[in-house]
Amino acid sequence: MEKLDKQTVRDMLLQAKEQKSLTWPQLAEKIGRSPVYTAQLVYGYGQTTDQEAEELLKALDLPSEIKPILMKVPHRQPAQPWPPTDPFVYRFYEAIMLYGPVYKDVAHEIFGDGIMSAIDMSVDIQKIEDPVGVPRMVITLNGKWLQYKKY
Amino acid sequence: MEKLDKQTVRDMLLQAKEQKSLTWPQLAEKIGRSPVYTAQLVYGYGQTTDQEAEELLKALDLPSEIKPILMKVPHRQPAQPWPPTDPFVYRFYEAIMLYGPVYKDVAHEIFGDGIMSAIDMSVDIQKIEDPVGVPRMVITLNGKWLQYKKY
Amino acid sequence: MEKLDKQTVRDMLLQAKEQKSLTWPQLAEKIGRSPVYTAQLVYGYGQTTDQEAEELLKALDLPSEIKPILMKVPHRQPAQPWPPTDPFVYRFYEAIMLYGPVYKDVAHEIFGDGIMSAIDMSVDIQKIEDPVGVPRMVITLNGKWLQYKKY
Amino acid sequence: MEKLDKQTVRDMLLQAKEQKSLTWPQLAEKIGRSPVYTAQLVYGYGQTTDQEAEELLKALDLPSEIKPILMKVPHRQPAQPWPPTDPFVYRFYEAIMLYGPVYKDVAHEIFGDGIMSAIDMSVDIQKIEDPVGVPRMVITLNGKWLQYKKY
Amino acid sequence: MEKLDKQTVRDMLLQAKEQKSLTWPQLAEKIGRSPVYTAQLVYGYGQTTDQEAEELLKALDLPSEIKPILMKVPHRQPAQPWPPTDPFVYRFYEAIMLYGPVYKDVAHEIFGDGIMSAIDMSVDIQKIEDPVGVPRMVITLNGKWLQYKKY
Amino acid sequence: MEKLDKQTVRDMLLQAKEQKSLTWPQLAEKIGRSPVYTAQLVYGYGQTTDQEAEELLKALDLPSEIKPILMKVPHRQPAQPWPPTDPFVYRFYEAIMLYGPVYKDVAHEIFGDGIMSAIDMSVDIQKIEDPVGVPRMVITLNGKWLQYKKY
Amino acid sequence: MEKLDKQTVRDMLLQAKEQKSLTWPQLAEKIGRSPVYTAQLVYGYGQTTDQEAEELLKALDLPSEIKPILMKVPHRQPAQPWPPTDPFVYRFYEAIMLYGPVYKDVAHEIFGDGIMSAIDMSVDIQKIEDPVGVPRMVITLNGKWLQYKKY
Amino acid sequence: MEKLDKQTVRDMLLQAKEQKSLTWPQLAEKIGRSPVYTAQLVYGYGQTTDQEAEELLKALDLPSEIKPILMKVPHRQPAQPWPPTDPFVYRFYEAIMLYGPVYKDVAHEIFGDGIMSAIDMSVDIQKIEDPVGVPRMVITLNGKWLQYKKY
Amino acid sequence: MEKLDKQTVRDMLLQAKEQKSLTWPQLAEKIGRSPVYTAQLVYGYGQTTDQEAEELLKALDLPSEIKPILMKVPHRQPAQPWPPTDPFVYRFYEAIMLYGPVYKDVAHEIFGDGIMSAIDMSVDIQKIEDPVGVPRMVITLNGKWLQYKKY
Amino acid sequence: MEKLDKQTVRDMLLQAKEQKSLTWPQLAEKIGRSPVYTAQLVYGYGQTTDQEAEELLKALDLPSEIKPILMKVPHRQPAQPWPPTDPFVYRFYEAIMLYGPVYKDVAHEIFGDGIMSAIDMSVDIQKIEDPVGVPRMVITLNGKWLQYKKY
Repeated sequence: MEKLDKQTVRDMLLQAKEQKSLTWPQLAEKIGRSPVYTAQLVYGYGQTTDQEAEELLKALDLPSEIKPILMKVPHRQPAQPWPPTDPFVYRFYEAIMLYGPVYKDVAHEIFGDGIMSAIDMSVDIQKIEDPVGVPRMVITLNGKWLQYKKY
Repeated sequence: MEKLDKQTVRDMLLQAKEQKSLTWPQLAEKIGRSPVYTAQLVYGYGQTTDQEAEELLKALDLPSEIKPILMKVPHRQPAQPWPPTDPFVYRFYEAIMLYGPVYKDVAHEIFGDGIMSAIDMSVDIQKIEDPVGVPRMVITLNGKWLQYKKY
Repeated sequence: MEKLDKQTVRDMLLQAKEQKSLTWPQLAEKIGRSPVYTAQLVYGYGQTTDQEAEELLKALDLPSEIKPILMKVPHRQPAQPWPPTDPFVYRFYEAIMLYGPVYKDVAHEIFGDGIMSAIDMSVDIQKIEDPVGVPRMVITLNGKWLQYKKY
Repeated sequence: MEKLDKQTVRDMLLQAKEQKSLTWPQLAEKIGRSPVYTAQLVYGYGQTTDQEAEELLKALDLPSEIKPILMKVPHRQPAQPWPPTDPFVYRFYEAIMLYGPVYKDVAHEIFGDGIMSAIDMSVDIQKIEDPVGVPRMVITLNGKWLQYKKY
Repeated sequence: MEKLDKQTVRDMLLQAKEQKSLTWPQLAEKIGRSPVYTAQLVYGYGQTTDQEAEELLKALDLPSEIKPILMKVPHRQPAQPWPPTDPFVYRFYEAIMLYGPVYKDVAHEIFGDGIMSAIDMSVDIQKIEDPVGVPRMVITLNGKWLQYKKY
Repeated sequence: MEKLDKQTVRDMLLQAKEQKSLTWPQLAEKIGRSPVYTAQLVYGYGQTTDQEAEELLKALDLPSEIKPILMKVPHRQPAQPWPPTDPFVYRFYEAIMLYGPVYKDVAHEIFGDGIMSAIDMSVDIQKIEDPVGVPRMVITLNGKWLQYKKY
Repeated sequence: MEKLDKQTVRDMLLQAKEQKSLTWPQLAEKIGRSPVYTAQLVYGYGQTTDQEAEELLKALDLPSEIKPILMKVPHRQPAQPWPPTDPFVYRFYEAIMLYGPVYKDVAHEIFGDGIMSAIDMSVDIQKIEDPVGVPRMVITLNGKWLQYKKY
Repeated sequence: MEKLDKQTVRDMLLQAKEQKSLTWPQLAEKIGRSPVYTAQLVYGYGQTTDQEAEELLKALDLPSEIKPILMKVPHRQPAQPWPPTDPFVYRFYEAIMLYGPVYKDVAHEIFGDGIMSAIDMSVDIQKIEDPVGVPRMVITLNGKWLQYKKY
Repeated sequence: MEKLDKQTVRDMLLQAKEQKSLTWPQLAEKIGRSPVYTAQLVYGYGQTTDQEAEELLKALDLPSEIKPILMKVPHRQPAQPWPPTDPFVYRFYEAIMLYGPVYKDVAHEIFGDGIMSAIDMSVDIQKIEDPVGVPRMVITLNGKWLQYKKY
Repeated sequence: MEKLDKQTVRDMLLQAKEQKSLTWPQLAEKIGRSPVYTAQLVYGYGQTTDQEAEELLKALDLPSEIKPILMKVPHRQPAQPWPPTDPFVYRFYEAIMLYGPVYKDVAHEIFGDGIMSAIDMSVDIQKIEDPVGVPRMVITLNGKWLQYKKY
């Protein structure tokens, strides 16, 4: 068996998910997490609990040697070229690049000086059907507000 | 009067909004648009209709010489250093850089091969109060799904 | 057999096309698509339908294990250094870099504020013979116009 | 009067064109060139002939001091940030970055080893109305084929 | 008077501090904050409270027109070239570049998967005299631990 | 056995540390160094003494062939992408990028023109428990002050 | 035999040329091309004719499997780091970077608005002996002038 | 009169040359240098002798205050964006980027390990008429060969 | 008088030095420092003592308003483009880029793990005449050795 | 035996030097060159003479197959990341980046317009003991002066 690290484990999990024809919501339900968070764990962007690791391996029929890798703290790195070349990802990049200061201005009027946490943030992706047109994608980022602290 | 272009007009509008103590929702209501879209117009990231321009100038007590600038198609450029140095903007950049492929994977499972439009996309920012903790910021991006077309 | 991914499948398809001495128009005809779109599929820049995959494999005498790879949504990345070093590609890059704002100005006068879609866009390449001189290459990009939406 | 160079002359010409409400095709007709080529001259990306300069200044009611600037060979530089941040321009950039090698492959099958000239190239932009849907933009690049020469 | 923005206000405050021969600890005491935090406010990296602004202006004998600028949320940008060229700053940059993963490993062993907040972080700088040698500089960063949240 | 170099030795040491469930303070105690300095040695960012090498190998049950590699002067290179993509590391990078000139100003007021050495610098990481809230991380950098010398 | 592509074929040809102690002029004579053009072909920067391929393989005693690779259109990429680090190459880079606009000015005075083709360009390198000093290298670039075309 | 530096002096000389309708060869003849070298001096890429300065100013009818600037050693910087965006300059850049190692190989076969000096190098630009076709541009770089010295 | 900062003071000092026809060694002698160190002070790369400032101003006949600027700690930034474009500076850059690891290897064999200080370093530049050839330049960097400290 | 190129030969020579416990001066003496130049040859930054190659192989007990690689002209590339991350190398980089224009100014006052050759340059590294303090490192670069030539 080849050397186990975050990268090879990601590939093994994605392949098993595909072979079992499991969707993200189905896999998410098995471990009791949201679909996007479950996908982040599978891609290796998080440290699973002992129970999450057990459930993931059971759901995907994978050997227990993988467990310690799942439970390790990851060194987070992009799984894509950067700046992004894929049009799906680039469109978000474009929105932040062009409208970031606009979002900041609207948010600061509401909250004062601070940021939306990228550490305590949930993400949800939904499809909105349109009876007479094309569907829409709705992505919601919900993060804890961190106010700048004074000292 | 100094030369009128998108940049100077942005400054004039932001200054007038501040002096009149208008919030984004208040200004938005006057022109019948959403707060974030209104802010995009004020920052110069859009082409106002004749009526939007009239209402903006009336609400902010600004002279009509500004109107043609508001109605021009903009050449969109970031109003910030890039990569972003401000922590508010960077946290979004970080999320896209690290988790972009995860969002793409979840979305493609739902929609197939395509992208969320950055041209037909609405953005909403809300504050969620937490009775016993700190509030959360919720940002929702709602865009038309564009399926890759075959030829 | 080596691990199948978009990259290895691209190489297998290109090699088979060469060995069978098939031209792009010939291969395109077999799957009922345009030559440039067919080439994009072969290079892995698209998600084939079940039928396109069947026809491609039949035309190129390739095994069915390849089919799931052809039907996967790709993460689009350039198959070349960037900025481009090949003179054929660079000349287009140069035209966009120098004359992009000119094209934008001419287009906006016609259409207002919007963009030509890169998702719903067909491309055609033709040779124009010149009886007394050298031939010319004509490349036509035909994309859906996406008008900026108001909210 | 401020110092005359390619940049200030561009601004003067664009402003005059706007004040006179001339479209690109109208201005093009006055100097006997295509609309896109005319726009390139106005933006300063070319060396006008004596007659082109005369006609441009007459059409736009501008003083003859400008003429030598119009007739100078330009040092070509982008009038935009690079890589492009404006979505209109970026979509072309994206197409070249992702599909450049595909276009090259299709073209070389037809022509052999060479390039499409960026020096002897005409560009045309058209709007195609769609009776039941949204219009399409068609941009055609027509360039002389330059075959690699042997020595 | 020239246009007031974060940059000009920074210069005015620093110049006044120099002319009054106030040290950072002295200025800090007047506004009831730590020396480093006070310096961050003066450099424009923060949003002062009404009272902080009043005290700063009083301590530095500056006019009240400055107050609204001090109370604005800043768009944080480096006041230096980047990567840093000044040896004082570069040595910290070098430590993070080379030893960042080491610090991360040691911290994660203690805390699990998370980060030290850069929003709720205090900084202190001290001089340690050495009776027989040269003095040492001690900089302490004290930040709230943010554990990755599960969803 | 694969070729021994700084990189492979790092992997062997980290793996052995994990299999023996040794913490950094435990390993540090065995070689008589601080935890962060010990981690730097394990990561290959230093030249061990003969005794440090002996103790490390004994504590981790590793063969003596490794010893010469541990005792070699390293060519220091980051074990991470740069600019940093991991949020733990980025937050420090952000602090130096934004507040570096502030720290420099405060330090120079105390010390005059000079730098804090990155060669003679100790680092300590501690957890501060907060009875009613979340814990804090405290990182202390303690470096020799190097005054610019005159000639 | 390892997979044949432009890179491996370049290595095979260069190695064979060295083993046979053939100089570039000698090899050039065998295929009836100039020395620099011959070297470009060997490095893979061109599409050989059927006859050139035959002659090259005969002169270098190499197998005919290589022929199709030699006859393929190349995707041109630098065989060196970029910007160039080798002093021989850097000196040319430096001349173009510093004096490019000077050469352009002198050339445009002679030719008007256009460029020297990099597609139809021959290159020659000669050694000029100096009886009392060191020799000189003379490199001559001779390219077709391409005048900007009007439309 | 505005502050005299290399940049303003370049502009003054170029403007005077244009107003007097002097060509580079005509100006070169007046100072006894080659046309390209003369252009380099006018652009500020060199230190004129006292006599060269006198002749230049006389030929261009410019005041003697300029003389010390002409006689100063320049800090050489490109008078153009870099990488080059102008097609005339880019084509040379492209040749060096793609074929640099080829030229190096051919030259080293002749000379051994060394470089062509960029300090002791003359440049000549000629037009070659073609009775039945378009003219060609010939640029010749003639530099002293510098052999790597042993120590 | 224009605003005094490190940049304007540098220009004033250099201009005065030129007008008084003082060489670096002559100016150095007046303030009792080495020529290179004196030049560093004049360029603003250092904090003068009270006495150095007095002597500099006296030697150059400049007003005392300049003194506080000379005595300020500088934020060190390059007074040139970077990477360097001037050939004089580039040749050093090239030596460090290519041979840096060689110098490091030779030095570490002598000294063990450490660096040559850039803070406590003197620099000397000499001309060595060669009776039968061209002169040589000798630059000597003499810096304190800083051994990595253990903790 | 693995493929012999400049990189593998460098590794073989360095390993043999270490196993034989030869210092750079000892190896240098065997081939009659200076220590730094000898190290440059071993690292592959030069073309050995026949005799140098013989002596190197004899001193290091290495097989004669290596000889042709040692005698080849190298394509010079850095054996380190760039910009440099190792503190030893960075300190030199920093000196050139900050003080390069200062050295240039001092040198040009002595020599006029020219450069110190990086091709004909010897380098020497010495340790200076300090009876009561720490030792110093002295590095001397001694290069031929190349005066800009006129044409």
